This record gives sequence, C-alpha cells and structure tokens, in this order.
Amino acid sequence: MTTLATLSTPVALIDLPRMQHNIQRMQQRMDSLGVRFRPHVKTSKSTPVIRAQIEAGARGITVSTLKEAEQCFADGITDILYAVGMAAHRLPQALALRKQGCDLKIITDSVASATAIADFGRAHGEVFEVWIEIDTDDHRSGIKPTEAALLDVGRALHDGGMRLGGVITHAGSSYDLNTPEALAAMAEQERAGCVHAAERLRAAGLPCDVVSVGSTPTALEARDLAGVTEVRAGVYVFFDLVMHGVGVCSKDEIALSVLTTVIGHQADKGWAIVDAGWMAMSRDRGTQKQAQDYGYGQVCTANGTVLPGYVISAANQEHGTVSFQGAADTDIVARFPLGTQLRILPNHACATGAQFPEYQAVSADGEVASWSRLHGW
Amino acid sequence: MTTLATLSTPVALIDLPRMQHNIQRMQQRMDSLGVRFRPHVKTSKSTPVIRAQIEAGARGITVSTLKEAEQCFADGITDILYAVGMAAHRLPQALALRKQGCDLKIITDSVASATAIADFGRAHGEVFEVWIEIDTDDHRSGIKPTEAALLDVGRALHDGGMRLGGVITHAGSSYDLNTPEALAAMAEQERAGCVHAAERLRAAGLPCDVVSVGSTPTALEARDLAGVTEVRAGVYVFFDLVMHGVGVCSKDEIALSVLTTVIGHQADKGWAIVDAGWMAMSRDRGTQKQAQDYGYGQVCTANGTVLPGYVISAANQEHGTVSFQGAADTDIVARFPLGTQLRILPNHACATGAQFPEYQAVSADGEVASWSRLHGW
Repeated sequence: MTTLATLSTPVALIDLPRMQHNIQRMQQRMDSLGVRFRPHVKTSKSTPVIRAQIEAGARGITVSTLKEAEQCFADGITDILYAVGMAAHRLPQALALRKQGCDLKIITDSVASATAIADFGRAHGEVFEVWIEIDTDDHRSGIKPTEAALLDVGRALHDGGMRLGGVITHAGSSYDLNTPEALAAMAEQERAGCVHAAERLRAAGLPCDVVSVGSTPTALEARDLAGVTEVRAGVYVFFDLVMHGVGVCSKDEIALSVLTTVIGHQADKGWAIVDAGWMAMSRDRGTQKQAQDYGYGQVCTANGTVLPGYVISAANQEHGTVSFQGAADTDIVARFPLGTQLRILPNHACATGAQFPEYQAVSADGEVASWSRLHGW
Repeated sequence: MTTLATLSTPVALIDLPRMQHNIQRMQQRMDSLGVRFRPHVKTSKSTPVIRAQIEAGARGITVSTLKEAEQCFADGITDILYAVGMAAHRLPQALALRKQGCDLKIITDSVASATAIADFGRAHGEVFEVWIEIDTDDHRSGIKPTEAALLDVGRALHDGGMRLGGVITHAGSSYDLNTPEALAAMAEQERAGCVHAAERLRAAGLPCDVVSVGSTPTALEARDLAGVTEVRAGVYVFFDLVMHGVGVCSKDEIALSVLTTVIGHQADKGWAIVDAGWMAMSRDRGTQKQAQDYGYGQVCTANGTVLPGYVISAANQEHGTVSFQGAADTDIVARFPLGTQLRILPNHACATGAQFPEYQAVSADGEVASWSRLHGW
C-alpha cells in the first residue's frame, strides 16, 4: 500500500475527504438555488475528480482547452462547454468533436467571430451550438449586456444557420473582493447582467435557452439566481489560500497541498530549506495583494495541521524557504529537522496543480492513489 | 513541412539561430576565461538543447532533479552534478544511478546531511562524490566561506569514506543587480568566497579539486576567475526579459517565446485578448520589481519583431490581455485583427518553458521541429 511516507517529494496531494466535502457543499448549494451546475474542470484536469463531480450531480462540464474536451469526451462525457472565445483556427478541432457525437458548445463575443463560425459551420454541414459571452464586470472578454452589438452577434449566428444556445458570463473580478456583502452584490450584478442580455435576445425574436453564470465566490454567495439556468465554478473543488482570503473557505477545506521535505537550514536566518520551490508551488503569488500574504504557501504538518505564521517566504526553482512571518525562528533546526515532511497549502490550486503530471489522492484511511492530469494544449 | 502558420497556439517556440548564438557566446567566454563550463539543464529540460550545449564544448551538466539526471544519463551523458542539497530519502535513487555507471556528483551543506550520505554510502559499498555548497551571497543554501562548520562537513565526508570532490556556489542574488560594475563585483564576491572555502579545506589536509561557481549574470560579467575550475549557468541558453533587465542580453537574443493568436478585443479599453494566459506564460512576474515591468511578456510580431510598448498586461488561465503601456490603443482591433499571430517574450524562460510538454524549434529557414521536455519529478 502506498502511503505518504513512501512518496518521494515534492508531490501534489489531494485530501479526498476535503474534496468530497467541497463537491457536496457546492452541489447542495446549487440544488437549493434551483440551478444546474456545470463544473469547470480546468482546475483539476483529472478524470477521477471530474467523475466525482458528475456523480454528485453536476450536469455537463466546462473546459478551458479543446484538449480537455477531447479527454473528457473519450471518458464518456458528452455535454461540454468550451468557455474560451472560439478562434477560427480551432474550428476544425471543434468540428471533429461534434462529428464524433460530442455535444460541444462554443462561445463568441463579436460579429467577426460569429460570422467566421457560421461560415465554417455551413461550409462543413455542421450546426454549431454557440453561446454569446457577456461582460458583466469589465474584467476580460464579452459584450456588455446593453450593447447594440449583442443583437448583431445573435443574428449573425441565428441567421447564419447556427444554434444560438444561450448567454454566458464569468464575474472573475469577484476574486478581488472579501466580504459576503460585496460578493453577493457581485453575484447579483453577474446574474442581472446576463439575464438582461438573454431578455434582449429573446425580445428580438432570437432563441436563448441557457443563462450561464459563475465563479466560485459568486456561486457560493449568490442569494437569488432568478432567470439563471446554470452555474459554473472551478476552483471550489480544491479551494486555496486566495479563496480563503476572499472569504469563501476555511483553511481546513483546502484539499490540494504539496508534500515537501526539509533538505537544509540557515539557522541564523531562521530558515528551513525545503524541496518545494516554484516549480512545485507555481509562481502564483495571488495572496500578495490580499490582506494576508502567504508568500508561496501556508506551511502545515505532514498530516495537514496548519502551522500558523510559517510560510514559504521565498522560492527558487527547486528550493523553498520556510520561515516564520515577523521574526526569525531561532529554533528552526530543532522544529523542522532534516528529512521532516511538511504539507504546503497553495495560493492558487489551478496553477499549483498544473506543475504536476499527477496527483496523489489520499483517502481517509491514508491510502494513496496516483491520478494523472492533463498537461499542455 | 511544419511551419509557424500550421501550429495551433499557444506553443513555445525556440528560435534556433538565437539559441546557437547564446550557446556560442557563453562557451567562447568560458574558453577565454580558461574554465570548464557545465550548463544547468533545468532551463530547457530538453535533449536536443543539451546536446547542442555539449557539442559547443560544455563539459558535463548540472541538473535540478534526479529525474533530469536519469533522462540525461539515458541519453549518454555521464558527468552530472545534482545541484540541490541531497535529501536522505533520495540516496537510493542516486545510488542506482552511480551503480549503473553514472558519474553523479551530489552536494551538501551540513554535518547532519554529510553524515547521512557517508553512512548510507558505506552501508551500500558506494563512494559518493560530494561537493560542499558554499553561501557567497546570503540568498539561499550553503555554508559561509569562513564558517567553522565547513571543515566539519569536509571531515564528515572525507573521514566517512566519501570522495570530497570540491566546493560549489551560486550567486543567485546577481539577478537583483543591473549594472556591469555591480555584476562584476558580485562575480568577484562569488569567486573569492568559493576559492577561499577551497583553500581552507586544502589547508586542513582535505581534498578539493573542483571550485564551481556561477549564475548567468556573473558568468557573463566576471572579469577574472582565478582559482575557479568550472562555471555553471542555465538561463543564458534562452535568455528572457529578466536577464534583459539585469543587462546581460538584448531582446533580440531572447530565444524562447510563446506563439499566440488574437481571439477577441475590448476596443474601448484598447485590449486585444490572446490565447496565451498564465497557463502558457507561467505566473512568473520577474520584471515586476525591475525598472521596466513587462507584465506577463513583451509582445512581438509573429516573426519576432519587438512591438515597443505592447505587453501582456493581465492574464487569466487561458486568456492574455494585450495592451499598450501608458495609454489605451484606440486602433487595437485594426492593429491586431482576430486571428493575428503574435510572439510573446517571457519574463522567465525556466518558468515559461515548464508550462509546455514540448518546444517547437524554429530553424533559420522557418522549418519547425517538435522537441519534448521533461515535466514533473
């Protein structure tokens, strides 16, 4: 039986009881709000994680690359939303998936892109299902809910012979907030904007069945989702220190960590050197702009107990520096002797997971299973 | 023939003429300084790149993980330095390499670790070659050149039956400097400290053949390397924007870039959205603290011509925001229409390369070859 003690570090651990708790928490919330839930699998990119989300009640998935779509379709999932603006050079890849029976939905936010999709679809005898991306928080892509171009895009798709399936938005700026009130207000802004866009399309005689919203913080803090048909969220499956700073999880809910080993010390500086550098933690410094900055991660014991104040304060490629925030720990050598295993909670689960070819999934009984994950495009 | 136009983005490109220029530049410098050169392969983790370094005159290699050592040994390279403090739990893996004929060198910086290595070596009938890590710039691991413990570590190895091969240091804090004078002074500090440590060991009757120093900036700006036997450097093979900020390369010497495609716009904000987000560029923001901050990268045309002022100013997982620094470019849609390919120079080549399972190596004639790279541990 593989156990933590037999693993060579650094490795990415999934705490399975915590992951199942997170999946249940989100699914129950979506059920109580009366909406379908479509998890974003870009966080885990791992089949057993996605299977657990679907078994808990998820209806379809969201992907960030067509490689994820291909992998999930090969695993038997057919209802897949590719939630990055469709680039014309990727249309043949999307076409191949649909021709094989994948119910792939794609998105667009401009007349030029909608026209390219419709032209390509007609030329290849395919009716693509396309959703229109709505910008409800000024942070990235999408058409404003009130913008005239919304109807032009809708007509380019519908009159162009494609299936206009719905509207989609993502309030990614919720990551910058940190109170339930602000998050609830952002969730309402996300909901109201997306529903308004749908109503404009319908009033113009265009079809718009789906109203898809979501981010982990707004999904967890939304108070009402009238008019919304489905919610998407990704990072909730693992959570991380950034989500803790946003205020939507406790540290004890963070299911992803990096197991590392103490390989040296600088006693006078109060440093323990571990073998989790930025190659393991990623370069994500998402807590840097939050009220509490955890450097490259929160240090825990090997069994996951948080050690308050101990963080990875600096990172080189294969070296992490563990130190106590505020004052040098003069007992660092005795506290963390050579060979000590520590768990590090990451700033950003999506970025840290991507550094590893596989996860080690740890059951409640301590047994460990290797779960591969996708890398690249 | 594969060419740039046939690649699906995002992909990591190696400009082969630039890479060969960088390899020649460093090797000629090392030859003129009269030292051996041992490149650090953690930057590329790719066999064809390493082969080009050896063909140009490199003598042995440096690795950051034992997986790199195993891969390189399988490729026929025997002289390998594993330049991360040896953890006891990795000794069986190191032993296996040596038993197969790999001339693997390992490093230590404490009596506890040296004793563990010697005990393990004697128990398994192996004389490990061990180098002692010296701290010449207070930035990470190592024993100070003047510290009493240096001789204790030397004796623990030598008297413990191991081969004390030499001393090694890395002035990583050179990355924080940006003038030739400051870099030359740091190179001299690195040289003098490491040579002093070697002299102390020799004066105590201990062997110390090798004096190994290096970082890309100090290697390129050292004026004299008296007493040094070999130099190590890694990122010089590709260079990057951080090295440009340090002042040791021009942008036209940066050999690694990410090819990306414009997938959308926010015209009123002056944004073009591209399919190189942080998953492609990495989360490395190494230029943030330098005089010139390039966000997540410098934008160039598809053929590599720098577009001054255009950077990736923000990044989500699969979205990058291209904007002009200072003022919104009101012509962004016309300047970079949907489907436009752009090349992005990265902040940190080691981090960006790690996001990709392979490189696309572009020859002077435009032909493209796929070169795989290692991922994980």
